[in-house]
Amino acid sequence: MLNDGSSKAKRVWCLVLMSVFFQGLMDDSDRDKILEGLSEIERLIENGEFKWRADREDVHMNIEAALTDMIGEPAKKLHTARSRNDQVQTDFRLWCRDAIDRIIPYIAHLQVALVTLALKNEGLIVPGYTHMQRAQPVLLQHHLLAYVEQLERDIGRLVDCRARLNFCPLGACALAGTGLPIDRFMTADKLGFSAPMRNSIDAVSDRDFVMEFLSANSIIAVHLSRLGEEWVLWASEEFGFITPSDSVSTGSSIMPQKKNPDPMELVRGKSARVIGDLVTLLTLCKGLPPSYNRDLQEDKEPVFDSVKTIVGMLEVSAEFAHNITYNKERIYRALPAGHLDATTLADYLVKKGVPFRTSHDIVGRSVAFCVSQNSQLKDLSLDELRSISPVFDKDVYEYLGVENAIKNFCSYGSTGLECVASQVDYWVRKLNIERI
Amino acid sequence: MLNDGSSKAKRVWCLVLMSVFFQGLMDDSDRDKILEGLSEIERLIENGEFKWRADREDVHMNIEAALTDMIGEPAKKLHTARSRNDQVQTDFRLWCRDAIDRIIPYIAHLQVALVTLALKNEGLIVPGYTHMQRAQPVLLQHHLLAYVEQLERDIGRLVDCRARLNFCPLGACALAGTGLPIDRFMTADKLGFSAPMRNSIDAVSDRDFVMEFLSANSIIAVHLSRLGEEWVLWASEEFGFITPSDSVSTGSSIMPQKKNPDPMELVRGKSARVIGDLVTLLTLCKGLPPSYNRDLQEDKEPVFDSVKTIVGMLEVSAEFAHNITYNKERIYRALPAGHLDATTLADYLVKKGVPFRTSHDIVGRSVAFCVSQNSQLKDLSLDELRSISPVFDKDVYEYLGVENAIKNFCSYGSTGLECVASQVDYWVRKLNIERI
Amino acid sequence: MLNDGSSKAKRVWCLVLMSVFFQGLMDDSDRDKILEGLSEIERLIENGEFKWRADREDVHMNIEAALTDMIGEPAKKLHTARSRNDQVQTDFRLWCRDAIDRIIPYIAHLQVALVTLALKNEGLIVPGYTHMQRAQPVLLQHHLLAYVEQLERDIGRLVDCRARLNFCPLGACALAGTGLPIDRFMTADKLGFSAPMRNSIDAVSDRDFVMEFLSANSIIAVHLSRLGEEWVLWASEEFGFITPSDSVSTGSSIMPQKKNPDPMELVRGKSARVIGDLVTLLTLCKGLPPSYNRDLQEDKEPVFDSVKTIVGMLEVSAEFAHNITYNKERIYRALPAGHLDATTLADYLVKKGVPFRTSHDIVGRSVAFCVSQNSQLKDLSLDELRSISPVFDKDVYEYLGVENAIKNFCSYGSTGLECVASQVDYWVRKLNIERI
Amino acid sequence: MLNDGSSKAKRVWCLVLMSVFFQGLMDDSDRDKILEGLSEIERLIENGEFKWRADREDVHMNIEAALTDMIGEPAKKLHTARSRNDQVQTDFRLWCRDAIDRIIPYIAHLQVALVTLALKNEGLIVPGYTHMQRAQPVLLQHHLLAYVEQLERDIGRLVDCRARLNFCPLGACALAGTGLPIDRFMTADKLGFSAPMRNSIDAVSDRDFVMEFLSANSIIAVHLSRLGEEWVLWASEEFGFITPSDSVSTGSSIMPQKKNPDPMELVRGKSARVIGDLVTLLTLCKGLPPSYNRDLQEDKEPVFDSVKTIVGMLEVSAEFAHNITYNKERIYRALPAGHLDATTLADYLVKKGVPFRTSHDIVGRSVAFCVSQNSQLKDLSLDELRSISPVFDKDVYEYLGVENAIKNFCSYGSTGLECVASQVDYWVRKLNIERI
Repeated sequence: MLNDGSSKAKRVWCLVLMSVFFQGLMDDSDRDKILEGLSEIERLIENGEFKWRADREDVHMNIEAALTDMIGEPAKKLHTARSRNDQVQTDFRLWCRDAIDRIIPYIAHLQVALVTLALKNEGLIVPGYTHMQRAQPVLLQHHLLAYVEQLERDIGRLVDCRARLNFCPLGACALAGTGLPIDRFMTADKLGFSAPMRNSIDAVSDRDFVMEFLSANSIIAVHLSRLGEEWVLWASEEFGFITPSDSVSTGSSIMPQKKNPDPMELVRGKSARVIGDLVTLLTLCKGLPPSYNRDLQEDKEPVFDSVKTIVGMLEVSAEFAHNITYNKERIYRALPAGHLDATTLADYLVKKGVPFRTSHDIVGRSVAFCVSQNSQLKDLSLDELRSISPVFDKDVYEYLGVENAIKNFCSYGSTGLECVASQVDYWVRKLNIERI
Repeated sequence: MLNDGSSKAKRVWCLVLMSVFFQGLMDDSDRDKILEGLSEIERLIENGEFKWRADREDVHMNIEAALTDMIGEPAKKLHTARSRNDQVQTDFRLWCRDAIDRIIPYIAHLQVALVTLALKNEGLIVPGYTHMQRAQPVLLQHHLLAYVEQLERDIGRLVDCRARLNFCPLGACALAGTGLPIDRFMTADKLGFSAPMRNSIDAVSDRDFVMEFLSANSIIAVHLSRLGEEWVLWASEEFGFITPSDSVSTGSSIMPQKKNPDPMELVRGKSARVIGDLVTLLTLCKGLPPSYNRDLQEDKEPVFDSVKTIVGMLEVSAEFAHNITYNKERIYRALPAGHLDATTLADYLVKKGVPFRTSHDIVGRSVAFCVSQNSQLKDLSLDELRSISPVFDKDVYEYLGVENAIKNFCSYGSTGLECVASQVDYWVRKLNIERI
Repeated sequence: MLNDGSSKAKRVWCLVLMSVFFQGLMDDSDRDKILEGLSEIERLIENGEFKWRADREDVHMNIEAALTDMIGEPAKKLHTARSRNDQVQTDFRLWCRDAIDRIIPYIAHLQVALVTLALKNEGLIVPGYTHMQRAQPVLLQHHLLAYVEQLERDIGRLVDCRARLNFCPLGACALAGTGLPIDRFMTADKLGFSAPMRNSIDAVSDRDFVMEFLSANSIIAVHLSRLGEEWVLWASEEFGFITPSDSVSTGSSIMPQKKNPDPMELVRGKSARVIGDLVTLLTLCKGLPPSYNRDLQEDKEPVFDSVKTIVGMLEVSAEFAHNITYNKERIYRALPAGHLDATTLADYLVKKGVPFRTSHDIVGRSVAFCVSQNSQLKDLSLDELRSISPVFDKDVYEYLGVENAIKNFCSYGSTGLECVASQVDYWVRKLNIERI
Repeated sequence: MLNDGSSKAKRVWCLVLMSVFFQGLMDDSDRDKILEGLSEIERLIENGEFKWRADREDVHMNIEAALTDMIGEPAKKLHTARSRNDQVQTDFRLWCRDAIDRIIPYIAHLQVALVTLALKNEGLIVPGYTHMQRAQPVLLQHHLLAYVEQLERDIGRLVDCRARLNFCPLGACALAGTGLPIDRFMTADKLGFSAPMRNSIDAVSDRDFVMEFLSANSIIAVHLSRLGEEWVLWASEEFGFITPSDSVSTGSSIMPQKKNPDPMELVRGKSARVIGDLVTLLTLCKGLPPSYNRDLQEDKEPVFDSVKTIVGMLEVSAEFAHNITYNKERIYRALPAGHLDATTLADYLVKKGVPFRTSHDIVGRSVAFCVSQNSQLKDLSLDELRSISPVFDKDVYEYLGVENAIKNFCSYGSTGLECVASQVDYWVRKLNIERI
């Protein structure tokens, strides 16, 4: 951060400088000396040769003092028409803006990884759960795209946050603005902000952009924690639905068959600190007296931690996605257990004109019959079915079995074959994924 | 909520019904009987005459069963092509959308109250603080508009949240969609949604819209807690800057002069529960297994509590704003104490060509001189000033004193007279406030 | 709470009264009239016949005013030597103390339920997990007692919290104490407090006892959320380790075989609001100005909610425990899959003098051999074992297989048969459980 | 932590070793070689000469491998009868125990600083506040001792937490214990634990001791945040009650009179991250599947951060306390404004036999009279007082004025002169403070 921050500070300083120059508060010669000096200082910092002195209060004072040591008198004009209050805010907004621009591609990479995983497993049916109980068959592709949708909204939140924070505090000075003739629109523009902030007190004292940013990160974290929970469960002996490759699991020398899905456990766990960081920031700002208070200096670390953690979580999740093998045999063995075609059978009856609630009851009795016989709906003979309801006809067998169930779903957004195919197409195009 | 919820449920049911009707799954007669029955049930509920039965699981089952008692067979078609999972989500999104539409005007009312308070106190100068120490003079109008800016971003967050949540889960059914020929675009459109949600699993299992909503509320709460802190402090004997009227303060029969600013203490305090509600929701969703889990039923109460609390906080703050009197005399007596014109004097020197850092030092010595003499900068004679720096000239007195200081601020967004006047104009127009 | 609170308020009032009486500030006749009046008011409240008036500020004022209406002049002595500030604090401490006394038996009931469940399943071996991967065999009894241990510490935290809060604020009055000759030791004693609080300002302004109480509840909630997660997972098709009885699961009319473990999903989910309540309280108190602030009035609802939620969670968990059947067949079928006797085999080698790390490697190779052959360690012939290491001897078969593994554990606190039996005995005696 | 942790790990290892040795699983020669090797590794680590290798998984593996490189075969016995799971837990409990032992003296130092500050300001009366409004006069000593009381309970919480966590997980191994004949009582005893933990699964999977520790820290943080708020306010121009010395305040070169109380702003602000750390931990553990999960590795950083922050906050607060000057003149000028002797006057009337509520009204009218005349209660003539109530007599003047008010408080724990003196004595003795 230091390097990065001071480089940004340099950008900010240079711009104030130019602004001041154009207003005639500084001449060519002073300007050029300061610019040269700052470039030299930047070089020193980047090479780790800059001497930071603890007696010089902070980064700002270190740089100004070093510049004075270097170029003398003109350095005393460096701080014209600004204050650390507005400068730090400008830097911090630039930092957050960059962080958002950095996080979004990581989200997109994870989306790509999930869609790629979906493409690799076309046609695979998995149980769909409610209450951790199998409820209906769903296409794995459909299941994975649910996460892609969530991540898309996560991007939307960051984009909105970015747009809202992209106003420039520079020139708010300590809190009241300045009496010197600066051009805040020019500096805002050069730094890529939409406009200068309208109110100088607001500019130095509010941190809502940070709270919004960390809220967006917390929601991403919650999404990833659920993905983590899924993959940890699915990698267990009991589920056995996925096998992570060795590169993303840890083994045990004594039990070489073990593949602990550590990375996703950590993703699940790390979601907690992203939430903790948000709580820190909300609690920090709660009840603060008006305008700037030193408490606000504590706003940086939770943000740095939140960003670093989120980037790591996204990166690890994408890497994990690239290293998952679905155990088709195991999954197919598991599918029959739940009578997952029951609701499809109910749809069949409704299409035949049976009221929904009645269909529901007929299917319930059919399933109960299967349970008592330890068989599957699709194994019932037409006579057996008709003994439960005379409405059943030969075409019922086009509705039974998980494959038929999947074929029969047809509503927009459903797990039906065609619906899902078109959703996959949508994402492949949107994310520019090359189909192999 | 019950009435409200069930009325919304009715809207949702009616639409599914129409959708089902148009697909030929129901005939005219059944449709009309159901619609009549639902209207009657709505009436009963509204009059408090509906018999809720605990043995009928939930609101849905109560209504369906009552409808069956009432109209018989056709009622069994009520539930065609839907599930409580998607219905509850549809209701909940409608509820949140309405809540946002309800909160935004309360924010705007508070903005109006603050701008009105600003208009009533044109020209009033108050100390601007950093570290709770007086730093520079600012116009009260400028100070109040800082809060108006914050509230404007709060509205922006709610608007973005509303746009993002306004997609319709109806038709996602239990989690996988349905095999019946429903028209999700029609129902989404009729319910005012932008479009149906693209993925049925996402539709029933994600709650990010709630987390985003409660995050936005938490930021509002933090903003109001700071306003509360300000007004509580300013109403103290020590500050004595404001007097709340009796209608918004509690007295003491034994100390009749006391005016406790209770409402703003409560606003400050209630911010905590809005934050607590957000934490509840984030923690609730963290690490949940895929798809729908019953845990998610716990998402309602924190939202209801958050909305109710935020509305109350906004309402009370606006009411308080309308009942504040600024104690001008007390404030003006307070102003000289801080040498608040010091930075304006530094600007003066910069304009005379003195490098900023040098100006800063000269002013520092001037203030130190005043402190030693227990006087003000504006009381120093030109000779005294020149003994500190020969740059001082007669025109320096146009920069001294808080009134001159205010006059000299000129940067965009600063507390300068004209800058603030134009900001006030901006808000008066934007908020449609009638100037008296 | 109202009834409850006012009844407690009555107790508090009566005592202040007696205290005042004994100091000669009140005569027999006044005292008796007040006591009779308060009893009548209590009766009215309990029968729901008391008229609460909104214009009479709060509960205190309602009761004092009603008493004045009833008995006239003497009622005006009711409030002698006290303030609502100390009275509310006294009531609130009594309420929290009672709540703790109410929660502890619920914890003990859950302990009893878990130990009873353990007794019913003596000898049952289940997989022990790390990373959700099977690691070693453990006795179900051992596994369940881990929760009992956690709950025991939960009780300890509540007991400590109770001892620390059990000091009496009564007599602190508004904040500074009083000049009237009251006896705070007498009132503290009569109300069951250890002693009066030593500092009147501390007495009315600190809420650390509430924060501590809600922290203790949050830890209980986390414990129960993990129990909830376990039972939800174990009830899934994939695990299939437990079947909850119908009384604690919800079914599905269409899939009658389903048994959704809703109560434990709700327990898991409700943990979030207990944590949210704690955050509310911590955030509420953070940064408050000295002494009493009206914000503190917001301390009640999170506590009421936390207590009600925790009691519900404990009750439901105990009820669920009483309604669990372990599916022994399913579990025993599952056990071999994980080579759970691997570490026992390593212990065998260590006992034979092989260094631990080397033993570890030998066992690793043995397991790898089994994996390649799709067999179990116990199925390997002595020759096969010896081909891996010559140390293996006939007695090795006393170490292989999960039953032997369990028999061989011998360290204190381990899952060995005898160790667990003695732990079960410990809890049976401690909790006074009758063995059947 | 690394050094520290590994040194603790060494202690733990040595003990396991001895335990193993005594059970005959290791001979003299192996034991001595291992002990020597570990000592050498410790030396290398302490001198920063140890080569940590990233390919060796973690600290444990690095040390074991280095030992093997160094002493060969015997090193392979190092890991006998233990696992990283129980070892890390043992280390972590030792770390937390040490941290508690480190924090408590910092709390005591702050208590000493506060009592010392009280001693330096004997007899000083300050306004006592409710709702940030002046309510009654209190002795500064009394006011400061309120914080001392809170800190005393903070110590109590840590002491209880320490006692509860002081049970030894060592020997729980991976999760199930071991089949090797170790002596857990011996190792527990040597490491200063009360006893070994009774249940091996509980030992490796529960983190309630961390949650309890961070809860206790959070309550300390809240206490200090309130102290911070007080001192920041009292150092403002408006209050002007305290002046921090230059060593604990930052100035402004341009406004040399300014003394920003930055350290206490930071104390107030840093309370937020201590709360955030607690939330991280609670959220981390919420809903985790049974037994050890890798998520739990995330438990360390919040604890390290919480401890470091709390120690810093306590240190800074004590330092600040040592550098406060109370501005007696300013305070005494402020005292009359609030009619702070009103409740003392009410006590006077009660002693004369006037019912409390009536006394209250009489005093209310008297204060109103003063307000209308802009005078003080003590300035009213006896005639004026008698015109309000005939009960007033000459002795009333012994009750008026803040000094008299203070003298008249007499209830235990009140701000009365003698009560406070005895409380000061209590703390001076308890904290071993030398009176000067």
